[in-house]
Amino acid sequence: MLQSPSGPIVETWVRVRFAETDAMGVVYHTNYIIWFEVGRGAYWRALCADVSGASADAGSFPVAAVEAHYHAPARYGDLVTIRTWVQEMRSRSVTFAYECRLASAGQRLAVGRTTHLFLDAQGHARRLPEGIRLALLGRQRA
Amino acid sequence: MLQSPSGPIVETWVRVRFAETDAMGVVYHTNYIIWFEVGRGAYWRALCADVSGASADAGSFPVAAVEAHYHAPARYGDLVTIRTWVQEMRSRSVTFAYECRLASAGQRLAVGRTTHLFLDAQGHARRLPEGIRLALLGRQRA
Amino acid sequence: MLQSPSGPIVETWVRVRFAETDAMGVVYHTNYIIWFEVGRGAYWRALCADVSGASADAGSFPVAAVEAHYHAPARYGDLVTIRTWVQEMRSRSVTFAYECRLASAGQRLAVGRTTHLFLDAQGHARRLPEGIRLALLGRQRA
Amino acid sequence: MLQSPSGPIVETWVRVRFAETDAMGVVYHTNYIIWFEVGRGAYWRALCADVSGASADAGSFPVAAVEAHYHAPARYGDLVTIRTWVQEMRSRSVTFAYECRLASAGQRLAVGRTTHLFLDAQGHARRLPEGIRLALLGRQRA
Repeated sequence: MLQSPSGPIVETWVRVRFAETDAMGVVYHTNYIIWFEVGRGAYWRALCADVSGASADAGSFPVAAVEAHYHAPARYGDLVTIRTWVQEMRSRSVTFAYECRLASAGQRLAVGRTTHLFLDAQGHARRLPEGIRLALLGRQRA
Repeated sequence: MLQSPSGPIVETWVRVRFAETDAMGVVYHTNYIIWFEVGRGAYWRALCADVSGASADAGSFPVAAVEAHYHAPARYGDLVTIRTWVQEMRSRSVTFAYECRLASAGQRLAVGRTTHLFLDAQGHARRLPEGIRLALLGRQRA
Repeated sequence: MLQSPSGPIVETWVRVRFAETDAMGVVYHTNYIIWFEVGRGAYWRALCADVSGASADAGSFPVAAVEAHYHAPARYGDLVTIRTWVQEMRSRSVTFAYECRLASAGQRLAVGRTTHLFLDAQGHARRLPEGIRLALLGRQRA
Repeated sequence: MLQSPSGPIVETWVRVRFAETDAMGVVYHTNYIIWFEVGRGAYWRALCADVSGASADAGSFPVAAVEAHYHAPARYGDLVTIRTWVQEMRSRSVTFAYECRLASAGQRLAVGRTTHLFLDAQGHARRLPEGIRLALLGRQRA
């Protein structure tokens, strides 16, 4: 499912919270997708200079679709590495891809992707501004 | 901790979600406090006629303090009864009290309370409008 | 993405909690996937007679993959209808499909599916027991 | 509410996730209590040498009561400092206290405390083992 990225890859880390586990003793499945959001935020902060970029991620780039595949479970206290990159850039949408691994042993936990539309202030789909597009591709600082 | 309520008591129900459990096999403790919010929303809907009342609960009545005491754990699939009432009404704040029980056996799971300030649109503490005050006490429909 | 189901469809409802909203003023995207779990639990309770069926859903049927597509946002206080059915039954896995709509206007909010492996007590993939398979297809009570 | 601690204070940090915000544009109130858990986990890891200590926190030290007071809201992307210490040690329970501040400006966001019972493997209240008691007080490594 994951294509080899040609652009930047940003890494960040989360430590599993007890609140994120479930009665199977492992991390509840939607929490990996929240970690994807953590990875996406780190990607924005790394490649887009200003805070408005980060809030734009929230504000004008709603999630249109999400997909996750689970390989192995994480447990309370585990340190997890999240790698994030841009998988596909289209005129009106961007797809991020993610990979979560155990930081210690490197075991793959989950992979996934999210597709985001670009919406203007009125909520209409629009073209991604060129500055943000280049910044997301790692070709210039926003 | 819970005083005998003299005003209305509103009941509602939640069924425990797997997402709400943790690795101890029981409901994670902050989820009872989210159920308090569910109970508070039911209270607003029951006693304050319009949707704006419900959104006012969210918007202009932020939580200033919360307290919860845990008696017995709920488990996945349990049906839980939440009882909500007004414990104390002051000029600029209101304290709701809550009790969660197993719907089947009646076993007490958790009790708690939340205190909310009344804020105006500028975010300043203000007196609770008389209409809402009376509605919350069950003396008239808002 | 959703195929027309030929087996049973089970409906259940959730009212949007304030805890489920985010700073965009709408429901945070992973919460729809938790509602899928709510729908799946309702499906098990409707078609599989005993509590062990429900806990088996949690225990021995871990989520291997999840997919969601978002059409319109839900807001605090909205009543949401969740429809759940079996989209595909294979020897060692089952895929559930879900649709969330506003209960009032019927507007489609999100659709998705989850694929679950059948694991034995040792955590190995196994064939789904015939009784559970037939129950999930609505052909006999488990 | 917070007494001046005489023992160790452990600091850790969280960055606010979009999933943790609500429709008021700020962090939903129960998430501060999850951050308390993050702080408590950091405390255990800092003062109790082994992983079993951390899991004991989850397993045999269930939360009996929680209290939180909210001073100012955190927002998406904020870096938050969590300080954790032991407020009171009794024979069969321990109370942790917490303080959350904005890492940048130092503004106080929330304070609180959680009281935990010590339970044995059969779920009965028991005395805290001396080794763990001393470790939590910072007087020896567990």
